[in-house]
Amino acid sequence: MKDTNDHQSDERFSLAEWARSIKWSALQEMLQQDARTGSISFALGLPAVELFPTKALAQAVAQVMSTNPAALQYGAPCEKLKTQIARLMSERGVACRKEQIFLCAGAQQGMSLLARLLLDPGGQAMMEEMAYTGFQQAIEPFRPLILSVPTDLDAGIEVDRVSSLLKGGARPSFIYVVTEGHNPLAVSISIERRVRLVELARQYKIPIIEDDAYGFLRYGSTCAPPLRALDEQWVLYIGTFSKILAPAFRVGWIVAPEWLMYRLSIVKEASDIDTSTFAQHVVSSYIDQGSLPEHIAELRSEYKRRRDSMLLALGKHFPHGSRWREPNSGLFIWVELPKTIDTTELLKVASETERVTFIPGSSFCVNGKTGYSNCLRLNFSNSSPERIEEGIERLSRALQAVGA
Amino acid sequence: MKDTNDHQSDERFSLAEWARSIKWSALQEMLQQDARTGSISFALGLPAVELFPTKALAQAVAQVMSTNPAALQYGAPCEKLKTQIARLMSERGVACRKEQIFLCAGAQQGMSLLARLLLDPGGQAMMEEMAYTGFQQAIEPFRPLILSVPTDLDAGIEVDRVSSLLKGGARPSFIYVVTEGHNPLAVSISIERRVRLVELARQYKIPIIEDDAYGFLRYGSTCAPPLRALDEQWVLYIGTFSKILAPAFRVGWIVAPEWLMYRLSIVKEASDIDTSTFAQHVVSSYIDQGSLPEHIAELRSEYKRRRDSMLLALGKHFPHGSRWREPNSGLFIWVELPKTIDTTELLKVASETERVTFIPGSSFCVNGKTGYSNCLRLNFSNSSPERIEEGIERLSRALQAVGA
Repeated sequence: MKDTNDHQSDERFSLAEWARSIKWSALQEMLQQDARTGSISFALGLPAVELFPTKALAQAVAQVMSTNPAALQYGAPCEKLKTQIARLMSERGVACRKEQIFLCAGAQQGMSLLARLLLDPGGQAMMEEMAYTGFQQAIEPFRPLILSVPTDLDAGIEVDRVSSLLKGGARPSFIYVVTEGHNPLAVSISIERRVRLVELARQYKIPIIEDDAYGFLRYGSTCAPPLRALDEQWVLYIGTFSKILAPAFRVGWIVAPEWLMYRLSIVKEASDIDTSTFAQHVVSSYIDQGSLPEHIAELRSEYKRRRDSMLLALGKHFPHGSRWREPNSGLFIWVELPKTIDTTELLKVASETERVTFIPGSSFCVNGKTGYSNCLRLNFSNSSPERIEEGIERLSRALQAVGA
Repeated sequence: MKDTNDHQSDERFSLAEWARSIKWSALQEMLQQDARTGSISFALGLPAVELFPTKALAQAVAQVMSTNPAALQYGAPCEKLKTQIARLMSERGVACRKEQIFLCAGAQQGMSLLARLLLDPGGQAMMEEMAYTGFQQAIEPFRPLILSVPTDLDAGIEVDRVSSLLKGGARPSFIYVVTEGHNPLAVSISIERRVRLVELARQYKIPIIEDDAYGFLRYGSTCAPPLRALDEQWVLYIGTFSKILAPAFRVGWIVAPEWLMYRLSIVKEASDIDTSTFAQHVVSSYIDQGSLPEHIAELRSEYKRRRDSMLLALGKHFPHGSRWREPNSGLFIWVELPKTIDTTELLKVASETERVTFIPGSSFCVNGKTGYSNCLRLNFSNSSPERIEEGIERLSRALQAVGA
């Protein structure tokens, strides 16, 4: 995949300006190699394959194939699935009607469609200093002016800073947040901040893009309501079946005001015509079987066990001066190491000599800024507790090797 | 779906400039209604559900579900499928390596990704005066300057005009063409024009986006090679399984120079992470069964029968002064009626009183231009010969009603 010199640049056509600076990522290449060589990976935010409800899904797939050949055709969005999602949203404390639900190919497409609909080239976008790289990629072609806001690791996005930027005249096309199980910081926004954030959105008439990819994966007994539960006009909620069912159906949804729906249809049609009719019907048929709530409960319980194993292993093996918090939801633990450690360097050693991987903190910096170079994001959902214990021990050996 | 007045505009956030002019299409609404009321539809470019190889696909689906749970996970593109596509491309006279194949969610996503990669906001795009609306939608957010070129209904895009525009200094980011079975004009580009088009691309270093959604559906014994067979550096070929297998797997591909591949990956990742691993494996498993060539032959034979039924019915029922040609490939017949007929008016009558639909010619005009108001596009793939005969007869009654 590396850029080869087999063609002179005068044998190439020219790309859009933003695309000329696309760089092949050495990090990504390394992670791909790692996947092949069977390292212990704490890098990607993958759900666990062994927890997919394979049997029930096979049944749903067989049912759709045998009873509904039209599910293989292009089609209008599945109304029944929208109704089912509306019911699922009530589990998250959100009251919405099926007319407010837009089906799309996973949460990522939800972000991409909303960016396309809201953001002008060179427009303003407000988000945290550390943010999901996929969202950064979705807005990059617009070359936006990014207004970045710090995050408190206990309470989430610094709403005071949001407020002062808006007061100072900033008018972003949207504010992007992950309410539960922040990626990469693993924090959930405090109730007080949720309320204030929504008030600011209303006051300044700025929509919030609420990325709730992890909202159903909470590990405490309670959970604050998502922003969408607090306001239906200014919050654009994004949900997905990728983390609670299986990613490969590519089915997610946006909850948005009704006036946005046909506009979303146009942008969706331009992107890829429709969300696989087949996949929509399979997910709907699976939900019909009635075992989704049970399945989500099982995921919560098993991911909590994995989270706890990782917390335990970190306590046992990681050097003095390292810090982390217990996340209430999501798939990640955010670790701060002593300032002297550069986690990009650590990754090289960890990957080459210990065969364990993670994502260095600096990878998530917005605005091309540097920082957080002593931090790392660890995923706990995709390894068994035994592998987690083993992997954290390996990582601590790599830490010793770089002098921690 | 109509825009409701339930919220004042001051209760709405603002959209990107291009998106403010998105209009709900009355045509689209009518077509959706029609689908529900069981009209005979010659409107959309749908493949026939009854010709899907349902049994073989069910087998492929079951095989993937039972042997490969990791197919439900996120995943790297399926290398085996790429190899199979490279082999399939040789059927189209194209020599390419799997390293030149990029998997995407149908042809539409191929267009959308390439537009994103090639086109700057306000940039130039060259295409025919009458063009696939999905491509127009894909570039609309960039608000491009569209350089439009007329089409000869016997030989395709007017290459002389392409040449003179380029000579005159036009520098579009790409030239978009449908080589076989043009949508909507149903023409295939002559060999001479294919050769000249590729020479111009080389000379001016401008890539051609070759939309070959219909290339495998040819009805003559021979077929000129696609542009990609004539050049591998300047032609970006788009293919899809939607028309030769089933749309709902949402699997298509781009054949492009290798240096473009990782750039495409970045844009793809930003759009929707990946093309359903499951769908890729199902298509691959279906191809493994070995019956795709046979299936394509069957489609050719049956669609040819439907095309011929429509040509026959047109000759029998349509008024003097109407003109059409026999298409060599694709899913459409393009009909020119006497200049006095307005096909948008005709559609209203046809739909309401005769319950038969089509797309009026003016719907395909680029640049918001008007014209071709006496023309219509008829789809013949999605109705049986009997329904085609019946539908054309109904349409001729509607024609009489509007005074033809």
